[in-house]
Formats: sequence, C-alpha cells, structure tokens
Amino acid sequence: MTPFPIRIVLVDSSHPGNIGAVARAMKNMGLRHLHLVRPREFPHAEATARASGADDVLAAAVVCDSVGAALEGCGLVLATTSRGRDHYHRVFDVREAAQRAVAEAASAPVALLFGAERTGLTNDDLRNAHGLLRIPTSDEYASLNLAMAVQVVSYELLRASREVTPPPLLRTQPLASAQQMDLLYEHLQVVLNDIDFRDRTQSGVNLITRIRAFLQRAELDINEVNILRGILSAVQQRRRRAGEQHS
Amino acid sequence: MTPFPIRIVLVDSSHPGNIGAVARAMKNMGLRHLHLVRPREFPHAEATARASGADDVLAAAVVCDSVGAALEGCGLVLATTSRGRDHYHRVFDVREAAQRAVAEAASAPVALLFGAERTGLTNDDLRNAHGLLRIPTSDEYASLNLAMAVQVVSYELLRASREVTPPPLLRTQPLASAQQMDLLYEHLQVVLNDIDFRDRTQSGVNLITRIRAFLQRAELDINEVNILRGILSAVQQRRRRAGEQHS
Repeated sequence: MTPFPIRIVLVDSSHPGNIGAVARAMKNMGLRHLHLVRPREFPHAEATARASGADDVLAAAVVCDSVGAALEGCGLVLATTSRGRDHYHRVFDVREAAQRAVAEAASAPVALLFGAERTGLTNDDLRNAHGLLRIPTSDEYASLNLAMAVQVVSYELLRASREVTPPPLLRTQPLASAQQMDLLYEHLQVVLNDIDFRDRTQSGVNLITRIRAFLQRAELDINEVNILRGILSAVQQRRRRAGEQHS
Repeated sequence: MTPFPIRIVLVDSSHPGNIGAVARAMKNMGLRHLHLVRPREFPHAEATARASGADDVLAAAVVCDSVGAALEGCGLVLATTSRGRDHYHRVFDVREAAQRAVAEAASAPVALLFGAERTGLTNDDLRNAHGLLRIPTSDEYASLNLAMAVQVVSYELLRASREVTPPPLLRTQPLASAQQMDLLYEHLQVVLNDIDFRDRTQSGVNLITRIRAFLQRAELDINEVNILRGILSAVQQRRRRAGEQHS
C-alpha cells in the first residue's frame, strides 16, 4: 500500500515513550508521516524501544518549532481534543473524520493534531484547524493515553482507506452440497430410530429440524460430513454385530 | 453506564506495563472485567503507573492459572490472533465481533482472549473459542502492541454498545459454557472409543479436534448440547443393553 499523505502532528509531547508508541501505532496502520512540535525529549532511548519495528517512522520524524511549520503544505487540518467541542469548530466523530481525511488526502496532505499529555491543545494550536476530532469514551474516565488516541485514529484511517471485509472461512475442502447435507440428516434419522432416541426437551419442534439448525450454522465441508457419517455408520455396525451375536 | 459483562482475558502476558495500559484502555471505554492468566509479573509498579486513573480495574483483576478458569461462567468466547485465520475458526472483523459480543453479553458474560506479546495464543488456548477476532492492519507491519489491540477492541465495544444492533441469532437459550462444551467433547470421546470408531480420512489431525472445529463454529446453546449428549447416552444404553443380552 502506498502510504497515504496523512500527517500525525504531536504538539509539546512530554513522554518520549509515547512518541515511540505513536510511531508503532502509525506504521501498524499504514501511516508514515510523523511531525513533532517542540518534543520535550527527542530522540530518546525509550522512544526507540517503544517504536519496536517502526524505527524507520521514528527516524523520518520531522521536528518543528511551531504548529504552523508542521502544517506546511497541508490542506485539511483536524485537531484531537478531549474537550470535545468549543464555540468555533465543527466536531467530527473519529469515524467520520477518518473518512473525510482519506477523501481530502487525495488532493493535499491532511494534518491531524494531538496535544500534550496533560494539557492537550491550546486555543492557539487550534487556530488552523478546520474541525475537531472526537473519540467516544466512557464518561467515567475519558482521558485516553496519547498513543492510544493515535492508535484509534490510525485504525479508523486504515479502515476508511480500504473496504474492510473479514476473510471467508479458510477451507481446504469445499462446502458440503445441499444434497450431501440432506443425506447426512437422513442417515442421522435412521440411526436415531435404530437407537430409539426420543427428544426429552419437549420443545414441540421436530428433533432433526433442531439438529439441522445448528449443523447448518456450522457450515460443514465435505470431510466434516464424512466424519459424521462415519460415526453414524460405526454406531450401526456395532449394533448389527451385537444383534447378530445375540440372535 | 452500567459496565457490560465483557471480560478481557490476557494470557501469559510478559510485560507488566502492558497490563496497566490495558486496564486504562478498558476503563476509558467503559470495560471493567480484567482476567490475567499466568501473568509473568503481577502486581507490579509499572502496571500501576501505566494504569493511571484505572487503578480500580487493575485492583479488581482476577488472576487465574488456566484459560478454562478465566472462562468460567462465560458464553461467547472470541480470540484475538495475529495469525488472522486457521482452518477451523470463523474469522470476525473486530467491528462485527464487537457487535456480536455486545449482543451476546445481554445473556451471558463474553470473553475476549489476548495472547502473549511475542507468541500470541496457542492452539490449546483457542480450543474454547467460537471464533477469531481480527483487527485490520498494514501488511508491512501487522504486529500490534498488546495494549493497543485491547484499545481498538474496547473502542469498538463502546461504539457497539451505544448503537442499536439487532442480535445476530435469535436465541431462546443461553450459549453453552466452555465447561459444558468440554464435557460434551469428553462424552463424545468415550462413545467413539466404545463404538471403536476410527477416522478414515487420515488427515493426521486428531478427530476430536476436527469435530470441535465445526461444533465451535455452530455456537451451540444449552439445549443443543443436551440433544447431542442425549443421543450419545442413547448410543451407550443400547450398546449396554445389547451387551447384557448377549453375555
């Protein structure tokens, strides 16, 4: 994937460990462009340690002395703030913000601002923002760790940048056909009659119908159907043999 | 908000800092129930430091010596694995998984498993899982930090809990517990031995493991487990009676 031109801008970060964790969170989600405005300590061994396999993102980080410098060349600017809203800015939910950011990044780099761990972004930091980005949290404890906030934002950016669909079940065998499943249920019915099995749950629903319900959910492949039919045959053979001996 | 009964289960975590960060990530998103299976170091000063305002979640964490103990009382079990998929489990995207987990948590506690930092979850840890939970990542660097993975999952859980989502499966009965499923597999093993059943597909994979795979996918409720155990008991009784007559 070509790294999309979205810039993560950390303003006045005080913990170098967080900077490293941010680099890793970004790279995990396909982001590469990290800008650091007045980091208190950088470079730093703890940043490198926490970056883990994202040391390249850390090494390429651009250190700036003002927010304005970090925004150079950017179009859309969104600011993450725990205050949630003010009187001036539109507030975007992080999911909607990510979709907007990815769309805007097609025409110019997008900047996402994150403030200092304790104090967040100042009003002056917000002056170039087009809107605020809000991550939903529990009312009881709303303050996300800085790197965690970047992780959630980066995750939504990755999702927005691709259609996320879970992979289908990894099969080595094709799904059993409707006919094969019907034969399985017929076989099962014969064996249930043989062993004189009665459903004692008294739900009023036919037993095979109930078994069918959960075996259809399991989406059996051909081998799996063969295992079940093999077990049914083994039950029949044992009974037959026992019957022969006793007759 | 009432904390919803979703359990975060960390298996074999090696870094106490991660445990603290997990507690904070959870509380930020309204989760409270943390279970630690064989943590290498806990309690620990670094865990407390990183937990920040979530020291209550950390203090209430339940330490267990097995995954089975951590799953006690749970219904749906999903496992987070970076391997993404295997041949047995259905894979849920984290967003879909969160919706399912919130829906299922209405009837019984849900457990979400997270493996050790370097090695992830073992096949044995996965045996009670109904499915795998996948967080989308960049192909270039897919390995999320443990606490970051919990953050993303917890974030999606919070979102899911605030959305109205229809339950995926209309259940009249609760999902069978991990223990009830284990008893079913043990019963099945006894009957397979009784009827001297041999797997002829020669896949090299243990037969019960293969049956477990598709029955876990089926997400059986308590009644469905009772139907299967009833059939197994009927097979045993018939054999016993036949044996008595012929001896």
